[in-house]
Formats: sequence, C-alpha cells, structure tokens
Amino acid sequence: MNVMTGRRRGAVRSEAARRAILSATARLFAQAGYDNLAMERIAAEAGVGKQTIYRWWPSKGELVAECLLEGMLLPQRFALTDTGDLRADLVDWIQRLFDILSEPGGEGLLRSLIAAATENADVGRRLRDSLGGTSSIAVRLASAVASSQLRADAPLQEVGEALIGAVLVRALGRVPVAEGDAARLVDAVLGNSLGGG
Amino acid sequence: MNVMTGRRRGAVRSEAARRAILSATARLFAQAGYDNLAMERIAAEAGVGKQTIYRWWPSKGELVAECLLEGMLLPQRFALTDTGDLRADLVDWIQRLFDILSEPGGEGLLRSLIAAATENADVGRRLRDSLGGTSSIAVRLASAVASSQLRADAPLQEVGEALIGAVLVRALGRVPVAEGDAARLVDAVLGNSLGGG
Repeated sequence: MNVMTGRRRGAVRSEAARRAILSATARLFAQAGYDNLAMERIAAEAGVGKQTIYRWWPSKGELVAECLLEGMLLPQRFALTDTGDLRADLVDWIQRLFDILSEPGGEGLLRSLIAAATENADVGRRLRDSLGGTSSIAVRLASAVASSQLRADAPLQEVGEALIGAVLVRALGRVPVAEGDAARLVDAVLGNSLGGG
Repeated sequence: MNVMTGRRRGAVRSEAARRAILSATARLFAQAGYDNLAMERIAAEAGVGKQTIYRWWPSKGELVAECLLEGMLLPQRFALTDTGDLRADLVDWIQRLFDILSEPGGEGLLRSLIAAATENADVGRRLRDSLGGTSSIAVRLASAVASSQLRADAPLQEVGEALIGAVLVRALGRVPVAEGDAARLVDAVLGNSLGGG
C-alpha cells in the first residue's frame, strides 16, 4: 500500500470499499449507537483493514458525518417529504422523529448523534439542516413560502431551528413523548408564520 | 480516611470540601470546557485528594450535573428573569445565550454542556428545564399564563423546548448569530400562544 502514499485521497479510494465502509458504519451506528462504534468492528464488517479506514477518515466523527451527508443514517426515519401540505408534512416528520425516541434504544441513538455533533462541525450542520435526512428543513419551508402557506417574511431559519431543537431537547431531557405532542410543537412554532395560502 | 468507609455519603461529606470541589469544577468548566475537565485538576484547585472527588461523584458528568443543579455554572449568563414582561424577558435571556455563542470559546462551552447531557440524564433534564439557570422556563411561562400574557391553553412544554432547542441547534450547527435573531426566535415561537394581557 506504500505506493499510494502521496497520491490524492480521492484518486486512490476504491468506491466499492468506500461504500462498504459507510454501509457498515450506518448499520453498526443504528444497532449500537455512536459511543459503541468501533473502527475495528466497522473494518471487519466492511472487509477492509482498519488502517484503510483511518487513511480516509481520521476519526469516527468524520465517518459518521459522511454517512449523514450521504443520507445513509436511518434514511426512512429522517426523511422530510413535500406533499404540498406544510403542516401535515412537518407533523408527520416530527412524529417519526418522536417515534424513534419512544423505541428501545432510540433515545440513546439520537443522543449518540448529538454527541457526534458536539465533536464534528459537519455532523452539527447536518443536524441543523435536516436532523440527518437528505432534504433540508430550510428548503421545505422556502417551498411553503412559494405556495403562500407561509408568510413571505416568516423567520425561516428560526422556525427550522426551533423544530429541530425541540426534538434534540426531548432526547437530551429524556422526556417521554405523549400523543399530540408533534402537532402541538408544529402549531406552536408555525403559528405566527402562517400565510393565507 | 478508611474510618469513613461504610457511613452514609451525606453524613461524612464535609460541606466546605463539597463547595470547594463544585466551585473548582464550575471555574474550570467555564475556562476549558467539559472535554478538558480533569478530575486531577479539579482536586488540585479544590485542595482535596482525587479519591475524595471520586468517592462522592463517580464521573465528571455527575459533578457537572451537580454544578448545574446548584446553579453554579455561569449563573449570570443563564438566568431567566421575571420582570412581568414575558417577551422582553425571553428576548433578553435568548440574547445572553446567543452572546455566549458569539464569544471566543463560548460555542465550544455550550457544546461541552450538550456533550455532558448526552452522557448524563440529570444534565439533560437541567438543560431542558432552564438551559443551566436556576429558574425554569416552564415556571416563567406559567407565570405568563397567570398574567394572561399567554393563552391558558398555550402548549407551554413545546414552547419551552423549542426556545431552548433553537439555542442548542445554533451551538451544534456552528451558526453565526445575527442582530435581531433572538427577537425573531421568540416571536416565532410565542406567536400563536400570546394572550390578550
């Protein structure tokens, strides 16, 4: 492998190995959480050497960040859809996030993601943008402004951060989720921003 | 110290030593953050043996939790006041929290607190209740219901979690704070809950 030293990372990375490593990381993260994620175990699952992982990702934080950025971390759970009905889409999304909190190990999994974000800026930005999904809350809110469901001067950044933040606070505060909480949260945060559309 | 073994913790703890340890923890936390908080350094600052700390607090997470619970962690910064004007009190509070984020090391300090909360449920609950202050957001919002500044059926839990969560998301997302962000956040989250008082 010494011959590779000095070449650009992107040029020598085998795409198949990269995907195998990211898949193994996403799988092990979902099973065991961030704290229990071991580079050795990921390497074994992916069928590569541990040094191969370290050459491309200096820390597990960066590895998890890349999984998030590729939309590989719980993709169905985190997805924010656009059916044209903003309130319904947000309630459905927050409810799926709250459902994760209610499952055995789910709260710990979200806390693991938050722990990764405290160490890695890319993970933090990703949480802020989409809580891990591939679609950004800012894009969804902008689409609602375009269809006049939100006022043109609605504070989109603050609305997005309040919604995502409330989910993180639930995970950190170990607060049980009750029926109707998702709708109450969405209505509280959207209330002042609704348009006439 | 062996003679102390077996007695109840509360009975043998010297209150002066306890205060000295908590003060040293709060001071070092403010200086260096959670990750750099070392039991050895705290013991030296407090003038006690490291084993004395470990006997009372098994981990630094529990030590930080007790500082938070005692209101010793940045007390002036985190304090939520009640002047009778809910909107003004909340904007002032969020602005002080955002100011922490704008200072050198301040964002890292809040992220340290969030990291502690991912490991320790007491810290997490404290963040959820007050973001570290001694006065709880739930109590402040309930007082606003009593004075009719908030509707009687306002979703107090969701409003509180959205406000505190938005601050945490800013810290995790490394998002610069702009002028007026605190007021925009408070107005967005309170909008639907305002009463006629």
